[in-house]
This record gives sequence, structure tokens and C-alpha cells, in this order.
Amino acid sequence: MINNWLDSIKWNEQGLVPAIAQEAGSGKVLMVAWMNREALKLTASSGKAVYWSRSRKKLWHKGEESGHEQIVHELRTDCDNDVILIQVVQVGGIACHTGRHNCFFQRLEDGQFKAVDPQLKDPNIIYRK
Amino acid sequence: MINNWLDSIKWNEQGLVPAIAQEAGSGKVLMVAWMNREALKLTASSGKAVYWSRSRKKLWHKGEESGHEQIVHELRTDCDNDVILIQVVQVGGIACHTGRHNCFFQRLEDGQFKAVDPQLKDPNIIYRK
Repeated sequence: MINNWLDSIKWNEQGLVPAIAQEAGSGKVLMVAWMNREALKLTASSGKAVYWSRSRKKLWHKGEESGHEQIVHELRTDCDNDVILIQVVQVGGIACHTGRHNCFFQRLEDGQFKAVDPQLKDPNIIYRK
Repeated sequence: MINNWLDSIKWNEQGLVPAIAQEAGSGKVLMVAWMNREALKLTASSGKAVYWSRSRKKLWHKGEESGHEQIVHELRTDCDNDVILIQVVQVGGIACHTGRHNCFFQRLEDGQFKAVDPQLKDPNIIYRK
């Protein structure tokens, strides 16, 4: 019963729900990823964002490689219980694997998407072993 | 070729992409819905948010019943080209069909989701014919 809030979520056919990470304070939308039940449970219990990597098919503790963890301040769902919205503090100020502050750096201008936000750090440095 | 920016989007198996509507100015995340190619094209060309209703299986011109249109100020996609983020002005100040400002009014507190934002208008009044 202690996790019955997890039962209120409408998981899709793959058992996933999209999760939006929004930066507390600035309100910037940092990224969208997916959570399965375990990821959402861990996000709530640990206070750090945990996603489900669809490509790697495993839990993805945000920042596990980059150090760019997300500290969760608030967790919400929408009227349909099929989207998660978390307010986070972005450690390192970089949410995107491209080394940018957030993933939404491509803006539609004159009929094409243009990268309009700066790369803050070289991914080769972020992800070097 | 004029619509080749639409080809850069990674549509899912259903030919859809999730779209986040964020309120210009406040930065509030208003709602998440889905767009197919036609909806995204119309959103960009008309300057008003058009979604694809998965339940009704047809284009959904946001506000067509409620009058609560969304005027689009900016359109972005993310690093994976699989999520759309639009900055909008929310006509009427109500994005949610429940009569609330936005759809993310349920906050996780003490192990359950609680509705923490006020209903601004009765849906029966919003949607009466």
C-alpha cells in the first residue's frame, strides 16, 4: 500500500511514462526522459532523478557518468496521470549530453532548426573515463 | 523541401511526438500532448497550438471547444529530435480541461498525489454548448 501512488500512474504499453525535468528557479525545461515504475519509485525515495534508458534498457541514474545529477525538489503528475514533472536542481548546470545547459537548444527559425544555445563543456571531457 | 524540418523529427511508431506547452513569461509547464506531422506543421504555420488527440484520433486545435487557444511564440526540439517544446501565451489563462491554469496540479506529498492548485472555472461552463 505504501507505493499505491505508483499505481495511479498510467504507464504506457512499454510500462513507461514520460518525465519532464524542469529547473527549479529558472523554470527552464532541461530534458525529457522516460521512467518505469522502479525509476519513478527511486526518484521519489532517493531525491535524485532516475530514468529508464530505452536504448540501454536499464535504469539510468542521471549523472552516473557525467556527475550531472538532478536533485529533486518536487514531483508532480498531470490531470491524466500519464506525465511526470519534476522540479530539479541541475548539478553542474549541464543537463544535456551535448554539454549544453538543457536539451532544447534547437529553435525553429526560417523553416529550419538552428542550435541557438552554447555548448558549455566538451562532451569528451564530461564523459571521459 | 520547404517542410524538411519536419523530416528531422523522430516520430514514434505511431507517427507521433510528445509536445510540451510552456507558458511564455511564467515558464509554467502547462500541458503535454501529442503531435503528428500535420499537427506540428499546422502549429508552425498557424502560430496556434494544434495537437493530435489519441483518444479521438483526430487533429485537436487547442481551444476549439473551450476557446482556450495557445498562441505560439517559439518552437524548439531537443537533442534527440524526439520532443517538441513550444512557448505559448495561454488564452483565458486556463490550459487544463479541469478548469485549472495547467495540467500539473497534482503534487506528491506524504506518499500520495494531492491536487494543490485551484480550479479557476467550472468545466461545465467552459465546455457547455
